[in-house]
Amino acid sequence: VLPESAERLECVRVNGRPDQQVSPFDRALHFGDGLFETVACRRGRPRFLSLHLERLRWGCGRLGIDGGDFDDIRLEILALAREIDAAIVKVVLTRGTALARGYGVTGQEKATRITFRYAWPKETGAESQEGVQARTGSLRLGENPALAGLKHCNRLEQILARREWTDPGITEALLFSSSGKLVSGTMSNVFIVDSAGLRTPRVDQCGVAGVMRRVVLREAAGAGIPVREDVLDAGDLQKADEVFLTNARIGIWPLRALDGRAMRIGPVTRQLQASLRPLLEEPVDA
Amino acid sequence: VLPESAERLECVRVNGRPDQQVSPFDRALHFGDGLFETVACRRGRPRFLSLHLERLRWGCGRLGIDGGDFDDIRLEILALAREIDAAIVKVVLTRGTALARGYGVTGQEKATRITFRYAWPKETGAESQEGVQARTGSLRLGENPALAGLKHCNRLEQILARREWTDPGITEALLFSSSGKLVSGTMSNVFIVDSAGLRTPRVDQCGVAGVMRRVVLREAAGAGIPVREDVLDAGDLQKADEVFLTNARIGIWPLRALDGRAMRIGPVTRQLQASLRPLLEEPVDA
Repeated sequence: VLPESAERLECVRVNGRPDQQVSPFDRALHFGDGLFETVACRRGRPRFLSLHLERLRWGCGRLGIDGGDFDDIRLEILALAREIDAAIVKVVLTRGTALARGYGVTGQEKATRITFRYAWPKETGAESQEGVQARTGSLRLGENPALAGLKHCNRLEQILARREWTDPGITEALLFSSSGKLVSGTMSNVFIVDSAGLRTPRVDQCGVAGVMRRVVLREAAGAGIPVREDVLDAGDLQKADEVFLTNARIGIWPLRALDGRAMRIGPVTRQLQASLRPLLEEPVDA
Repeated sequence: VLPESAERLECVRVNGRPDQQVSPFDRALHFGDGLFETVACRRGRPRFLSLHLERLRWGCGRLGIDGGDFDDIRLEILALAREIDAAIVKVVLTRGTALARGYGVTGQEKATRITFRYAWPKETGAESQEGVQARTGSLRLGENPALAGLKHCNRLEQILARREWTDPGITEALLFSSSGKLVSGTMSNVFIVDSAGLRTPRVDQCGVAGVMRRVVLREAAGAGIPVREDVLDAGDLQKADEVFLTNARIGIWPLRALDGRAMRIGPVTRQLQASLRPLLEEPVDA
């Protein structure tokens, strides 16, 4: 059933113990009341672990989740990364269980930490080198500043958006918000390059503040490329000279076509790919 | 820890078996990828069971979830209701488990059904008789027609909205959408009565198409009260002669104050409460 591109599960731990069971009272199950991080690991080391933990801690603060001991989370990710050459470690941190019905929290909840390791999917490097094809999604993302930026567990929008196409030649859909602003892909952030420099949509109304997005913004600024988080629309996307996608696993994937229209993979994309490569292949926690 | 108003858990079944465990790969846990129903049960019988099952089936269709055998769901709710005088049965129906990472679905997922029975909370009837106090919430609900109306498991907005107050004298917050339209409470639908008759917000941009909301619309129409699903704003709420809340458990709770301003509990509210009473106290499946 699973395609070769699937990231197959290797192991799972619940609250630090090898376990295959979660309480049916967990609030993530009822309400998506939790956060997650997807940490790409290479050569036994997680990429950008501090940035992932920083975002997770920020999310806990925003949602009022007591995330427990972050050193435990850090050590667990390091341990799961250590034995393998390439894997994805996913951490789901939920608000915990509830023994009464309803949305209200007592403040006594104790976070549930579920940690998964998935095999790195088979890949040839073609996506990075030759680029990928994307389409414009028709689902519009709802806007809510209270949730914007967070990698939270309310992801029905992304699931519905991913269901809009089955063509395996299409890698990603670019999504707009209900007010018509460009936001992101279903599982990636998006950057455009034009005469204004390098820009990526703000994530203050919806979207996820991706760790790779942050790294690319930092690397670009360090290389002297003019860079800005901005309000972007379909016109900006249409007129862009270069467009690329980012996420923790893929790094940078250039767009070679959008809705069937061929696009050029340009010099800014190539420069940033080159500057990222050592960070992705030989992770140091920076 | 739990207040007397809490609905304490009595029992739980997973896929029809008494069980305390759910797979950590369930997509509801990762993404809130599921739906739920909250069925109030009195004198051994569930209220409006067919309407709950109809909405659940509609939600499965909208999200592309294969919900399995709905007769099983029906029989399980009936069985859980049978032994007790008053309880809440909650059914969570998720898309099922995934052994690969990511938002995409294979189409082979098999739904997970988790059924809970909660004790009916202690209540004196004061809320129905004397009304409740509400406040205006500051969180604005994101708008997405693809999810609007569904009782899905992406409920972080409601959780954050419920966290805005702790005063036990306040029962509910009324919420507006990102475009400034009145939507609902955090756990209830809202109706207003004014010279235009009885109106409740449309749920085509956000909000939940509540079963009790539907019953009230039906009963009002049957009683010859002019009734409409409408686009409502803060002005409509401000000018309303009567305001009341509905959900499957509470039936109709009148507002006796909003943001500290006293409100009158009016004749339309009282008429509808009287017409609902037999349906709530002696449920027949209609």
